[in-house]
Amino acid sequence: MLPWRTIIVPDKDCDTPIYLQIANAIIQEMKKGRIGPGIKLPGTRQMSEILEVHRKTLVRSYEELDAQGWIEMHPSKGTFTSKELPEINPRRFSVRTEKRNSFPSETGYKVRINNNIRKPALTYRNITGFHDAPDVRLMPVQELGRAYKSILSRPVNFKYMSYVDIAGVQKFREVLSEYLNSSRGLQTSFENIMITRGSQMGLYLLTCVLFSKEENVIIGDTNYYYADRCFENAGMHLVRVKVDEYGIDVDAIEKICRKKKIKAIYITSHHHYPTTVTLIASRRIKLLELSEKFGFIIIEDDYDYDFHYCSSPILPLISADQKGMIIYIGTLSKTIAPAIRTGYVVAPPNLILELARIRQIIDTQGDPIMELALAEMFSEGEIRRHMKKALQEYHQRRDFLCELLTQKLPGIIEFKTPDGGLAIWAKFDKSVPLPPLTEKLRSQGLILSNGLIHNISSVSINTTRMGFAWMNRKETERAIAILTKTIKTNRTT
Amino acid sequence: MLPWRTIIVPDKDCDTPIYLQIANAIIQEMKKGRIGPGIKLPGTRQMSEILEVHRKTLVRSYEELDAQGWIEMHPSKGTFTSKELPEINPRRFSVRTEKRNSFPSETGYKVRINNNIRKPALTYRNITGFHDAPDVRLMPVQELGRAYKSILSRPVNFKYMSYVDIAGVQKFREVLSEYLNSSRGLQTSFENIMITRGSQMGLYLLTCVLFSKEENVIIGDTNYYYADRCFENAGMHLVRVKVDEYGIDVDAIEKICRKKKIKAIYITSHHHYPTTVTLIASRRIKLLELSEKFGFIIIEDDYDYDFHYCSSPILPLISADQKGMIIYIGTLSKTIAPAIRTGYVVAPPNLILELARIRQIIDTQGDPIMELALAEMFSEGEIRRHMKKALQEYHQRRDFLCELLTQKLPGIIEFKTPDGGLAIWAKFDKSVPLPPLTEKLRSQGLILSNGLIHNISSVSINTTRMGFAWMNRKETERAIAILTKTIKTNRTT
Repeated sequence: MLPWRTIIVPDKDCDTPIYLQIANAIIQEMKKGRIGPGIKLPGTRQMSEILEVHRKTLVRSYEELDAQGWIEMHPSKGTFTSKELPEINPRRFSVRTEKRNSFPSETGYKVRINNNIRKPALTYRNITGFHDAPDVRLMPVQELGRAYKSILSRPVNFKYMSYVDIAGVQKFREVLSEYLNSSRGLQTSFENIMITRGSQMGLYLLTCVLFSKEENVIIGDTNYYYADRCFENAGMHLVRVKVDEYGIDVDAIEKICRKKKIKAIYITSHHHYPTTVTLIASRRIKLLELSEKFGFIIIEDDYDYDFHYCSSPILPLISADQKGMIIYIGTLSKTIAPAIRTGYVVAPPNLILELARIRQIIDTQGDPIMELALAEMFSEGEIRRHMKKALQEYHQRRDFLCELLTQKLPGIIEFKTPDGGLAIWAKFDKSVPLPPLTEKLRSQGLILSNGLIHNISSVSINTTRMGFAWMNRKETERAIAILTKTIKTNRTT
Repeated sequence: MLPWRTIIVPDKDCDTPIYLQIANAIIQEMKKGRIGPGIKLPGTRQMSEILEVHRKTLVRSYEELDAQGWIEMHPSKGTFTSKELPEINPRRFSVRTEKRNSFPSETGYKVRINNNIRKPALTYRNITGFHDAPDVRLMPVQELGRAYKSILSRPVNFKYMSYVDIAGVQKFREVLSEYLNSSRGLQTSFENIMITRGSQMGLYLLTCVLFSKEENVIIGDTNYYYADRCFENAGMHLVRVKVDEYGIDVDAIEKICRKKKIKAIYITSHHHYPTTVTLIASRRIKLLELSEKFGFIIIEDDYDYDFHYCSSPILPLISADQKGMIIYIGTLSKTIAPAIRTGYVVAPPNLILELARIRQIIDTQGDPIMELALAEMFSEGEIRRHMKKALQEYHQRRDFLCELLTQKLPGIIEFKTPDGGLAIWAKFDKSVPLPPLTEKLRSQGLILSNGLIHNISSVSINTTRMGFAWMNRKETERAIAILTKTIKTNRTT
């Protein structure tokens, strides 16, 4: 008899159920070869006595081992470990393989390093910081968990588990269309909507379908980093136009259009990224006119429309587009959480078709399970409820951060209270250069972006986005205390 | 008093809970303007008597309405509809918007139609057919639903709800690495693994990072349609090499390499797509030697390694790669279901880094919620159990379909029983051209691919993939009866 009590030591404090712990322990021993093939195991009754656990638990353990193919149960003869381990025992095709002990540490061919796009950064999103992101702790996780479970428990949904409509599950496009119509004054139907993985994929698909090398795209100065890289990747020329307190300079756009052919303009009209300013009505009207006159496409990226704190939001440009010149993109990854990688492109069906066509070679299709879960949450009002709660909370957090900055760091940080979004655009005094400051903060466990990503020339604008939504009141207080102390110590030394 | 009993008619047979039905009915009336702002509603007690539902239900309804911002509850004064509807009431910025009644039916600019890639097809995956896909009814949906719910219920997972490692959640990459090592004889660590959305995205990312216009890639004749389109989209030249019963012709590859620079070769070595043949050992060894000699990259797409029915599977080429010349891609979308859009690229870390870098502009990051759920299912043995069950089932289904075809349609369909995968490669006699046949079958509710996608020239090979995994025994019997009858009726007329 094997020393079962030594081999199998269930831990009641562990997350894994006891029956699985027992099964896994036996599997481990079989893998190590300490329990060989064809060995008779004690019956469940005997084993339950040895291990001092309930017999029912043992029955489940054995069922598990049987289901996974590690043991064979013969009603009359008893339970035996399998003769062949359920590990697939594949054939080697070459003796060469025997010689290798580790995976090659480097490619045998040259990999081009794409220095145009910055290296993915470690994000430290789980610690305190002025992260430019929603507070994931407000996320309706229980409701989402329930929605996933409910979706997966209904056999009627099997049809969505295979290949689905590439533009997204129709049910979800319908509720999203309804939501966009009621909140943004649109007149869409589901056919105008393509579900994407966040607004980034919307933008990427557009560059695949609409643009060619050497074409000109107008963007803000400064602009969203990953949008710039996306256009660059398509081989386009970036034509920068100044953004002032009223949004992008539309007169400057007109002048450029008189001189050269502009294929498209990319705007974040509701809250310009990164400066947070809202494009005023007169410029909106003129921009639409210019688009029709010069034939350029307007890509309106409305990544944070749902978060607007002052009076009421302004309807997106697309609500006034009569000629089909505007493509609208948005996302739930800000509204709910970045892990909800669900965005959308709103456009006439002839464009949606082409986006779906190219998507076949990029990632085949979307994620019908997540789409169904979100559709359910929209229908049951969970998303709306979440948005209302988050809006109130972020409104207070914005006011609190702005108040603290004014009180504690007068003259150091220049900013305007943003009308919406999740961050303020904070210009630091030149006596406090951001890169060394943010390094010092990081060593104290506080994350603030050094803002280098917003520089578009070698001249530093020493400005960064300070997220106010990520932290609660207490965390913000602590963060500002660290920030204040670090800045003051630094300036005097 | 409003006619509440007429306005609110809860339906007990409906999926939506009664309390939500009541709340939704009130919202609808408010939206229509039939219940104005600031109107006093009956108390929950009174309303519960009017509607003849439990008072607790009404309390939940009112709580829901309050949470969504439709009503305001004043402890002393009573419950009133909100003065401002929680619909955001955004500002229009132009009178132009008033004129528009519908969304533009077409873009105002020209959209290039990409005829190189076929139009996304309606898939009809919910009806009977020889679909080249796993049977989603075998999918462990309950277990997956539980895993999702469990992941989302643990506060420790909040850190994954924000921006995460672009190569995938480390925990998932670890279990996947372990699984690949034990099942495929690899020696990977998590750093060798990038999680992608199915193998298609793996391939797409590779074309973004490694290849340039005008470079040559060797592919099979015929080959997987969406791989061909992916290379074409990167501007590469497709160099086709014959595939015979032993796999791709490696001598032919050598001859080509002597004449021109080959950047890469794309192979589906375990079961060539679409012909299902396995690349034999001698050719594998030679292919590896050629790769080292001529410096071409081998992309090994092992989309269905987990389904092998004859003796044991052959280890993938990458298990014998000592020089880092092979990139291995795989997917769970065949192993579990197409809705599980989770694949992987296995390569040295310097390539993984570049794949992650480019992914930032494509879709920012993966889906941490699904990755965590799958990691849990791997750890608990659910995936292995599913695979074992599916493998047995598909083995029987393969044998059954092959038997029926031999019995019922001798001389009409030429095929070899495939060693693995989910489909047989079925060459139809030229007296039965596939396009009209499949049209006739479709009108009878039976889907069979017309195989046109596999033709690489204007000469039809009249061969298609007949999936055997999608249908159970009874469905296959019925499908073959329809197929047999349709073919026979057709040939005699």
